[in-house]
This record gives sequence, structure tokens and C-alpha cells, in this order.
Amino acid sequence: MSSPISLTSNIASTNPSVNQKTSDLDVLIIGAGPAGLMAAACLARYGVHNIRIVDKRMTQIFTGQADALNSRSIEILHALEMGTQIMEESNELGEISFWEPDDTSRTLTRKCRIPATVPGLSRYVQRGIHQGRIERILMGKIASWSSRLGKTGKPQTYKPSISVERAVCPSSLELPSPTASALSDSPDDRIVVQLRHLTETEAKPAQFSPLATDGLFRSNVFEKDELDAAPKGLPEKEVLEEVRCRYVIGTDGARSWTRSAVGYRLEGESSNYFWGVMDGIPATDFPDIRLLCCLHSASSGSMLMIPRENHLVRLYVQLPQPPKGQRPNRSDITPEKLLKMANTILAPYTINIPKVEWYTCYEVGQRLVNKYSWADRIFLGGDACHTHSPKLAQGMNMSMSDTFNLTWKLAHVLQGKAHPDILKTYESERAPLGAELIEVDRKLSGLFSGRPALADSSGISLPEFRETMRKGNEFGTGIFIDYPSSELVVKKSDPNSKIHNKQELAKSVVVGPRLASQQVVCLADAKPYHLSDLIPADGKWKLLIFGGDIAKDLGCKERLDRLARFLGESQESPIKKYTPCGEESDWIIDCITILASSRVLIEPDDFHDVLRPLKGKYGFRSYQKIFTDDESYHQGHGHAYEKYGIDSKIGCVLVVRPDQHVSLITGIDDHAGIGEFSQPSFTYSEL
Amino acid sequence: MSSPISLTSNIASTNPSVNQKTSDLDVLIIGAGPAGLMAAACLARYGVHNIRIVDKRMTQIFTGQADALNSRSIEILHALEMGTQIMEESNELGEISFWEPDDTSRTLTRKCRIPATVPGLSRYVQRGIHQGRIERILMGKIASWSSRLGKTGKPQTYKPSISVERAVCPSSLELPSPTASALSDSPDDRIVVQLRHLTETEAKPAQFSPLATDGLFRSNVFEKDELDAAPKGLPEKEVLEEVRCRYVIGTDGARSWTRSAVGYRLEGESSNYFWGVMDGIPATDFPDIRLLCCLHSASSGSMLMIPRENHLVRLYVQLPQPPKGQRPNRSDITPEKLLKMANTILAPYTINIPKVEWYTCYEVGQRLVNKYSWADRIFLGGDACHTHSPKLAQGMNMSMSDTFNLTWKLAHVLQGKAHPDILKTYESERAPLGAELIEVDRKLSGLFSGRPALADSSGISLPEFRETMRKGNEFGTGIFIDYPSSELVVKKSDPNSKIHNKQELAKSVVVGPRLASQQVVCLADAKPYHLSDLIPADGKWKLLIFGGDIAKDLGCKERLDRLARFLGESQESPIKKYTPCGEESDWIIDCITILASSRVLIEPDDFHDVLRPLKGKYGFRSYQKIFTDDESYHQGHGHAYEKYGIDSKIGCVLVVRPDQHVSLITGIDDHAGIGEFSQPSFTYSEL
Repeated sequence: MSSPISLTSNIASTNPSVNQKTSDLDVLIIGAGPAGLMAAACLARYGVHNIRIVDKRMTQIFTGQADALNSRSIEILHALEMGTQIMEESNELGEISFWEPDDTSRTLTRKCRIPATVPGLSRYVQRGIHQGRIERILMGKIASWSSRLGKTGKPQTYKPSISVERAVCPSSLELPSPTASALSDSPDDRIVVQLRHLTETEAKPAQFSPLATDGLFRSNVFEKDELDAAPKGLPEKEVLEEVRCRYVIGTDGARSWTRSAVGYRLEGESSNYFWGVMDGIPATDFPDIRLLCCLHSASSGSMLMIPRENHLVRLYVQLPQPPKGQRPNRSDITPEKLLKMANTILAPYTINIPKVEWYTCYEVGQRLVNKYSWADRIFLGGDACHTHSPKLAQGMNMSMSDTFNLTWKLAHVLQGKAHPDILKTYESERAPLGAELIEVDRKLSGLFSGRPALADSSGISLPEFRETMRKGNEFGTGIFIDYPSSELVVKKSDPNSKIHNKQELAKSVVVGPRLASQQVVCLADAKPYHLSDLIPADGKWKLLIFGGDIAKDLGCKERLDRLARFLGESQESPIKKYTPCGEESDWIIDCITILASSRVLIEPDDFHDVLRPLKGKYGFRSYQKIFTDDESYHQGHGHAYEKYGIDSKIGCVLVVRPDQHVSLITGIDDHAGIGEFSQPSFTYSEL
Repeated sequence: MSSPISLTSNIASTNPSVNQKTSDLDVLIIGAGPAGLMAAACLARYGVHNIRIVDKRMTQIFTGQADALNSRSIEILHALEMGTQIMEESNELGEISFWEPDDTSRTLTRKCRIPATVPGLSRYVQRGIHQGRIERILMGKIASWSSRLGKTGKPQTYKPSISVERAVCPSSLELPSPTASALSDSPDDRIVVQLRHLTETEAKPAQFSPLATDGLFRSNVFEKDELDAAPKGLPEKEVLEEVRCRYVIGTDGARSWTRSAVGYRLEGESSNYFWGVMDGIPATDFPDIRLLCCLHSASSGSMLMIPRENHLVRLYVQLPQPPKGQRPNRSDITPEKLLKMANTILAPYTINIPKVEWYTCYEVGQRLVNKYSWADRIFLGGDACHTHSPKLAQGMNMSMSDTFNLTWKLAHVLQGKAHPDILKTYESERAPLGAELIEVDRKLSGLFSGRPALADSSGISLPEFRETMRKGNEFGTGIFIDYPSSELVVKKSDPNSKIHNKQELAKSVVVGPRLASQQVVCLADAKPYHLSDLIPADGKWKLLIFGGDIAKDLGCKERLDRLARFLGESQESPIKKYTPCGEESDWIIDCITILASSRVLIEPDDFHDVLRPLKGKYGFRSYQKIFTDDESYHQGHGHAYEKYGIDSKIGCVLVVRPDQHVSLITGIDDHAGIGEFSQPSFTYSEL
């Protein structure tokens, strides 16, 4: 076995024992925060079940940490069937309110209001919910998606095959040759990770965190990651085991072991700005306590207030700046002192938090990893790639978005649906975003921590701060995430190319970002649906066939029928080529047809079976496949054609990736392009 | 003890044993279907916990039975915090499609489409979900609302004090004097019910239902109610116990034991029309299978098809009519034969249901009870009061609506919030509705079961059927339920009366029906809310104070301040008079203020504490109490003043009952009227 790199854990083994067993995995996920859990949930959903997820912490987190979901994250969670629960438990943010010193009196006054989420971008607006709940919901989905279904269809009666293994950490990692194939079955071609199951003695919080018992959690100033609760049920003697992996995902946080193991590092610097954070239900006379407030006091520092679920509010309180290179005194970081500082900033208003639910402090800094993957075999995601201040509330969002991008590709490769080359797009798509986030955060953090320029002093410009906050907030929605050209994203409009983006057919659709959702009406049940709900993150590609107005004599019906026959019958059809024998016709590509005619002018059964497949052994028809851009009875008209810029006399086809990003715009008659497009990415072969 | 009536169970006691114990209850609920469970859930929510609910059946139902929720039921379930779960599990109905013989060819053709729910009436449209799920959700709420809260606020760690006691049936009932007070503590004044806990031998399904094992459930043609499953954990010897009750609610179905015990009866007749019902996932070429379809075949009978949750469809299939006074042969009622009849009616289309989930048959009939209550001590609700055909899908809706109406009044009386006289309104409000339902159903059922009049034959008029179905469907939304004048509903506009309805102040609000919901924007958090979500069914009265445009110099702010001082400080204020010492100011009356000014022109803290109370020992402010009729960032403008017909220069006060029905419209200056209105209904006294 070639082994260019081998690294030993920084947690020293005190009581080595023999390896208990060796096993083979498709994917090992190291770290069970939001990024790792999202990875496990997606892989479980896409049907990749020979995976494990380990975390050195003994329990999940229950309070504090990340607290915001941006619009795109909520779209993703809906696409993964977690939306309803999230919507019920989280708190929607309504408005951002800027409080600054009055120009003459210097008293704190409200200077400006903006909507917390830019209107019109998404069905969902920014919401607050604590990380522990998101983790819990993701764990629930991992359990149900990895449970075998019994005859009754009730997964809960079966043990899930995937669950987070806690108090387990990697202790060494051996890399194969960088040119070895992940899909090879030779043991030499696997990534070999040694896992250490911590003993009760080792897993005690005190061992990793001298401060874990005093209420200060996971501060980047004073401590290392610690275990959250007293350990139970751990082995008495340390257990080592060896796992041989096709792929490894390192989502083990800012101090990522996996990152070190492959020799990568975070680059960037600290700012010498320190902030305290606390959660609780406030008693206050401050009128905007249920708004997201950015406060700059004249000379006492800044504060960010975020209203949360269950009447909670989170305060980010700027701490007095210590001399360059020094840190605040530990004794100054207590709930009482943080609250005192908050009151100084908030004067003449007062705030009290009778019961502090959680608190911490952190030093502002921006750091970025130099590479996201090793040989397209080991992938880093989340805080392992990028750390920054929490002000833009991007930590959890960007982290989940990283592995949401990665995992459908990984599932495609492992299931023989795509060539391993598509894994290169993980870094090419995600790394620029990480860099942009770091840049936006660096600018905003400086302005947030800076002393405001008043008439008689130098300092930061408050209007510039507000404009930067507004722009950062727009970036922070996640809606503008735009992936660059690749074999998965055809942006070029070159008629001489075999596959070319026919932008003119859908003038308002952008290839690269996720498809904006519009409402359409189902032919079979007369109900309105949002397109985003019809293209869930189920691991399938979607062909959105805008068939035009087939009720008029424009040739649309004939063109649609020809396309359907091509898709359903031609040997050149990607559906025919890449769907294995015995699988249903929507195994890899799901067709959704949207017509521009009035619903009552169309008979719902007048379509080729490929557009409304028969499923299962009894041949139950799929009814939610054909839609019209029509008025609904109770929710108005979606005007999808108009909003996408599609001509109802011509129509078009949108190729949409399993993560809802638009891949290609082409014509209904472009059978060759549709067939050709899939060539480089689809490659079914029995593994 | 005076005992005018005493009745013994029709289930003969075979093994009498001594009374095990005697206990005192505020309310005994007999029968745990939707009406009984709704009663228990509401009482638990309103804080009446000394109650029990018993049912002679051994288990809840799991399939079949009622399947539809109308708009008002969904509003009620939302008001009881069950909405999200219902919305997720149920299937929205989109359209009603009428299929009839073609005028010349007599082939079945689609003749007409109407929306399944009349647009504009409610936020919610009709949905299908089976009764077992509703019962399960209600039971969950009973458990959580009757659990004592521990220090952690987690009810699930405590045993709920109320749960359905199964295989328990009443065996005798002794009435006190009709003039005895329910609130008296004398044993002589209680209703004494003997409860019998069935033994394992008795509870065997076979004992009550010779057909329970062959798959035919609860048909009114062949069987009595039966136990649904094999009994477990029952006493070996029969146990009798005596409970002494202030009130009894009889929700024990069409064959109500309670109804017999008080000597009331259902009146009405049968039609000699028989229908079969079956549930399953269909394989069919019928194009409208996901619509609610009313089919009249030329000569093979009628069918009703209802799309349900989880791809299920319910078929109501008309059976051939036996000679007058006779019943169909039991051997003709099998899934296979029902399906064969369905195919005859549906020709030229075909339908197959590979796996029948549930089936039954019933004889169409309409019956109504002669009285709803005995001495305002024993109340009947649900099928015990009214039985009818299931075509209008009103069984479960009307049943839950009965006890939803009753229980807040009962809680008020038991908690000393209101005089027992208000209980008279149960019958005066609900009995006319039962009668109307019976009438609508009688007309519709006749037309549904009748043979259509074609060019060459006599029969029912299909256009008349469609119009009757449309009207019945409108009635069936439950939105038009309008309670008559009483001390709880002030419809009269007589300026000489002390309390008089000032209709001119809210021209489009109707006193009697539930308040239609409009969107408003919260002052404190800038988010849009629906008024119906701000006036939940929490057992409190609501004062909706439409304060007008307080930002303009119209006197509105002064009038609002005067009203707030009256409500918060005057000894004549109903809040001051009827809220016991030590309780929070919204204990019996909750104030919601809606202003007509632009939100950004108003400071959220510029209001009297009575309009935004401080809660709990720490004085946490209530933030969701003051709203504006303004544009929201993401969901448009609610135009509440315009839609309610309220002048923004004048404003008004709406008094809304705990069940969301409008009680009174009056002026902001009408302090006397607001104080006076509550006189007859509110009567706080320590019990």
C-alpha cells in the first residue's frame, strides 16, 4: 500500500489496545455538526447506506451555537422534507433596525430599517433556530432514511443502519496513491482510517475543556472543543478499529483533524476584536427587541441583537479591546459582566436576562482553507474550510450547503450514475464561495467593531456600515450562489458547440444558480404547486419541459409528443441509455411538464407514459407530473412562463441538477443536445 | 337522592362484582370518537382536568370511517394548535367534477367542474384525512395539555392526567333533581354513573360483532358497533365503579347509550338506498381520479370518488336497490363485488384496487335527536344527535364542532368565569344546525341515489343535482355557521338598549358567525400575522380594538388611550371586575389592538400596559398584541379595515368569543357597553 501521508491523532492514546475489527465503507464522515449530519442525511436519502459518521463529542449540542437559517438553507431543508418542522419551530426574522448615536445629542436612536430578507428572492425568509434543533431534525431523517422498510411501511420498527457514533475519533489516516480509483475493490486503493473509541476516563469533559463546567461553551478564545455532557456507556478499555474507505468527508470543524491529516491548513488572521454572546429571554424597555438590531453606541462599543424562537433573544456584545496581541481576562467573561456591557451600549434603555441559557465569547477572525479536497477522495466541508465571525449568520448555512453540494455527486459516482470526474466540481463550485464569504465578513466585521465617526471624531462611516450590512445580508440569503461553467453547468451560448445554452428561450432563468420557484397548477388534481416542491432533493436530475400552449394550433403539442417519444423510446434518449434494466423510467431523470394552456382545455390522460410514468407492480399512475401555468382556485396565478421569460408559443427544456441548480436551457426540439448533454456526466455501469 | 330516571346498560352484566370505588368528576365524557375527543382536548386545554373519557371499544380506529375536514374544522384545529400536523398529513381537495351520461350517446362524460371549496371564504380549503389520524392527534393534545409541567417545561416526562379509558362502558345513570346545581358540592346534586370495566371475555370483538373478522367495519346495515381489535390487559373479573359527575357529555354515537339513558331518541327514517364504501390505491384509466367526482351513470347507479392522503381514493358505490323494506344480501357486500359495481358505473373507464384498505356499506337515512341537553347537565353531541349520509362529509366536522361549542362554556362555568345559564346556548346554537344539515342531506341524498332523467326517461334532474351539490358544499364549509341572538351574541341594533350592536362601525363583520381572518402586521417584530392565529381557542374572550389611524390628528390616539385606561384601571372594567386577584390581566379577556397607521409612524412602546401586558415574575413583555393594517415585506397588504368595513378615522371594538364567533360590535368610546355586555355572562366567584 502506498502511503504518502500518515498522521496520528493529536489526542494521545494512553491505553493502546489491539484493533478490534476491519471494515469497508463507501464513505466515512468525520464530525457530526450541521455539515456532517447534512452529508449523512443526503447520502442516506440518495440510497448510499454503507457509510458511517463519527464524532469525538459525547452528545449533540442542546443550546447556543449557530442560530440562523437563510432563505436558501430553508429551501434546501424543504427539498429534503424537513421544511414543515423547521417552519414550526423557528422564528422568522422581520426587520433589521439600525441604532446609532443621534448626530447632535449622541443618544442612541433608530436611524434606519430594512427588511431582514430581501423581498421577492425566495418563498422563505431568514429564520432563527438553534443548531441543536437542526442537528436533531437531521438525525431523525438519517434514522428514517437508513431504516429498512418492513411490510407495513413503518420504518420506526426497524433499526436504522446509520446513526452518529459519538466519542469516536480518528487516530490515523493512510492515503492510497493519488491516482488510485475510489471504485476499485483492491484494499490498496482504499483510504485507511484508524478509529479510536474513547473510554469513559478519556471522554470526561474536563479532559478537553477546563472550562466546560463553568457554563462557557466552545469559545475560540479560551478552550478547545469539549464534550458537552458527562459520558455514559463508553468502553472501559480503549478500542481501536480500522476502516477502509472509498471516500472520506472531513466536517470536523475549525480545528479539523482531517484537514491536518491531509496537510492542509486554514489561512488568515485574527483581528484583536473580541465579542461576547449570550442567549436568554430579556426583560427590557428597548422597543425593537423583536427585531434584528445593529447598534453602534457613541463610545461604548457595538451590539447585535437577534430575536429567536421561544421568546429568546441572542446578544452579541462587543468587549473592550485589549492591547494588541493580548486577550481579555477570563474573569471578565461572565454573564453578569456581559449583561453590564450590554446595558452600557444600550443606554438609555436597559435590559435584563434573568436566566442566561448559554453564553460564550470569540475573537473575530477570517480563515480559509487552501484546498477543499485531496485527490477527489477526501473532502473538507463547513468550518474545516472557512471560519469567520457569526455576524452574517453564515456558519451553519454555508456548512450545510457545502455537503449538500458534495453528496449528490458522491452518490451518483458510487451508484454508477456518473463519472468520478464530476467530483472535481465540489472544489470548483464551493471554494470561490468560501473566499467571497471571508471577504464580505472581513469588511463587515471591521465596520461592526469600529468606533463610529461622529461630528467630532474619526472612526468608521455608519452609512457605509449600513450599506455593507445590506449587501452582506443579500449575499447571506444564499440565493445568489452561482456555480461556474463545468460539465454540470452549461453557461456558454455558442451555437457551434454541440451542447449550448439557449438563453433566449428562458430569458429570466440563469444557468448556475438554483431555479427560482413559481407556482403551477396540476392537471390531474387542479391544485397549485410550487415548482420547488416538484423538484425535491431526491438525487434525481429533472427535465422541466415547458411544452407551450398545446391547446392552440401552434405545433406545440406535436413538438411535445416528439420529445416524449424521443425520451421514452429512442435508444439515444438519456433515460433509455442510463436507466438500468428493471428500474422505473424516472430512476435517474424525472420529467416535469408545464404547459401554457388553460387547464380545462387539456385532458390529463393525453400524454406519453414517459411524462406520467406507471409505478410499481400494479402500475399506479404518477399524477403530479403534468402542470399548467394557469389561475388556481385559491392562490392566484403563478405566471411561470412570464416570470421565467419563456414564450408560450415556443417553450423550452430546463435541465435541473439534483441540487435544484439550473444546468442547461435548451429547445424542445433539441433531442441531440439533451442526449449529448448527459454524455460526460451520466455513465451507468453495474459496480 | 332524587332519581327521576335510572337506566341499566343494554350490555347485560354476566359477572357482577362489588363497586370498586366512588369518585367525583367535573365532567364525564362517554364515547371517544371525534366529538368526545374534541371535548376532552378542549377541556384539558382550558384547564378543566378533573374529567374522564371512556369508550366501550378496545382500541381507536385505524382505517376508514370519516375522511373529510371542512374549512371551519381546519380553522378550529389550527386554533387548537393542531393545524400544522393536519396540513402535513391530509390531502387538499382541488375540484369537484360532475360526470353524467352524454345527452345523445349516453356515454359517461365530464359535464361540469366547480372548485371543491368556495374561494375566498377561508384561509383553508377542504381536506381529506382519515378519522383515525384526527383521533390520534386529539389524543396527543389531551396528553400534553393534561400533563403537569415540570421544572424543565417538558410535559412528556410526566404522566398525563387524562387519557381515553377503553373497554369501559356506563351501566347505569341516576339523575339528580332537574333543578339541582351542578356547582353544588352535595352528593345528592350529582349525576351518578356506574361504569363497568369490561373483562377480557366480554370485550372480545366476536361478542358484539359477528362480522368483525370478515373485514366489514361498522356498517349500519349488518352490525352493531364492535371492538376493533383483540382485547389485551383487561380485568379478569368485571369491575364496577361509581362516578358522581357535575356534568356528563354523551358522544357515544348513533346508538348512544347516554341518549337512551335520558330518554331521548333519534327521529327520522331510512331511504331504502344502500351504498358500499371502499378505500384503496386505484389503478385506473379514469382521468379525474384525483378530483372529487360525482358520477351518475345512465342506468347502473351513482358513484362518489374522493381522493385522499397517501394516494388513496375512497369510492362510494350505489348498490342495486332491494325491494322496499328489504336489505341487500350480506354475500353481495364484498370488495370484489363492490369493485365490479364500480366498474359498471364507470364504464367505459375501468378501475382496479389491488389492495382494499377498508370497506363497509350503509343505508342512507337522516335522523335527528329531539333534545340536545338534559337540564343543562347532560349534553349530547355528534352522531348521538344527528345521523345522515356521508356524502356531504359532515359527520366528523359537525361532531367536533358540537363539542367545540360546548366545552368553552362548560369550562367557564366550572372555573367561575360565567353563569351556568350560558349552557342553554349549547342547544339553542347547535340544534338548528343539526336540523339544517339533515334537511340539506335529505335533498342531496335523494338526488344522488336517483336515476338520472335522460331524454327518454323520467328521473332526477342532473342540473338540479349539481346545483344542490354546490349549495350543500357551500353549507358544508362550516363557514356560514351563524349563532342566533342570546346573551352571548348581540345581533340587535337598538340604540335604546344598554348593549346594542353598532353594525355601522364594522359594516362587513357579521355578529353570529366566526370572525373572518385578515392579515395584519405586528408593531414589535414587523411580521405579518393572520388575526385568526392571534385569537386562538385558548378559552379567553378577545377584545379586538380597532384603534384607527393614531398617527394622524384625528383624536384616535386619545380615544384609544381613554379606552386602555378604562380597561386597565377603572373598577367598571370587565378585566378589573372579573380577573381574580393574582391572575394576569389577560386571564379572561385578551386585548388585541389593530391600528390603521403606517407601522413606521408608531413607536411600539407608546401604549398602556393593559394592551401589552407584562407576564410572569420577571415581567416579560407581551410583544404580539399590537398590530397595524399595513403592507408587509413579503406577503402584501391585508387591508383589514377595508375588508371589515371599519372607518380608519373612527375605529371600533369587536368582542369575540373563545370559539372565534363574533359577539358584539361596539364603539371605542362605549366603555359602558363593554362593561355592561359582560355582566350576564361573566361572574367570577371562587368555587
